[in-house]
Amino acid sequence: MIKASYKIEPIGIVRSELVNCEAAPHQGNEGAPDAWLEVNTTVAEALEGIKPGDEIIVITWFHKAHRNTLKLHPRGDKSMPLKGSFATRSPDRPNPIGLHRVTVLEITGNRLKVGPIEAVDGTPVIDIKPALPRTEDS
Amino acid sequence: MIKASYKIEPIGIVRSELVNCEAAPHQGNEGAPDAWLEVNTTVAEALEGIKPGDEIIVITWFHKAHRNTLKLHPRGDKSMPLKGSFATRSPDRPNPIGLHRVTVLEITGNRLKVGPIEAVDGTPVIDIKPALPRTEDS
Repeated sequence: MIKASYKIEPIGIVRSELVNCEAAPHQGNEGAPDAWLEVNTTVAEALEGIKPGDEIIVITWFHKAHRNTLKLHPRGDKSMPLKGSFATRSPDRPNPIGLHRVTVLEITGNRLKVGPIEAVDGTPVIDIKPALPRTEDS
Repeated sequence: MIKASYKIEPIGIVRSELVNCEAAPHQGNEGAPDAWLEVNTTVAEALEGIKPGDEIIVITWFHKAHRNTLKLHPRGDKSMPLKGSFATRSPDRPNPIGLHRVTVLEITGNRLKVGPIEAVDGTPVIDIKPALPRTEDS
């Protein structure tokens, strides 16, 4: 058992027309809109090499999630049996990390238009990585 | 720009024969071994529903990474031009999060045998999620 803890500082924020969790689809490919990622100017040079058309993994922090949830009904459907949160993609989990595979549509300075993405407006972005080819993705 | 910060507490640890970063391959499919994930007993019930044969995303915290790296030579190859760290999968980045798509090979209580995985022994695990089908993976 590890007793250490680590501090995450957001590297940016999601700017989306989705303003509440109830309106957000469960996954990006379920009708989610495009959105802008505003990357902090202090780390914007780390974007160099990303270009429109690229597929990237946006990693978010679900700041409104319940971190003490260990079991839940998948997709909020109470007719489904309880499942461990590590066996679901629910935001409610000990470290509420979100993974979003999206396409880069436009880049303007420290702002990236990406989509589709189901994260709500104001969601902190904590990392961005290039997606691996779909045959060997993480 | 977001000024908040968040605290991550590991939910487990990687137990691997890989003991130093130099010996670790860059990606899991480049000759990495299988390894055990030891999940903290306090959150082990969140594993319920995961079974051998499942593909999961193991999310790690590269605790030995350099967090102030914004540009680097991809794969440590100095003949390659510098690239932004968000355009690479290097562990060296502001929030050193690792994504590993692996297969579950065996489960014994709070321990999961998974592979292949390039994370070194002692790497903190911060989340586990089911992988989405490869055609729509995050």
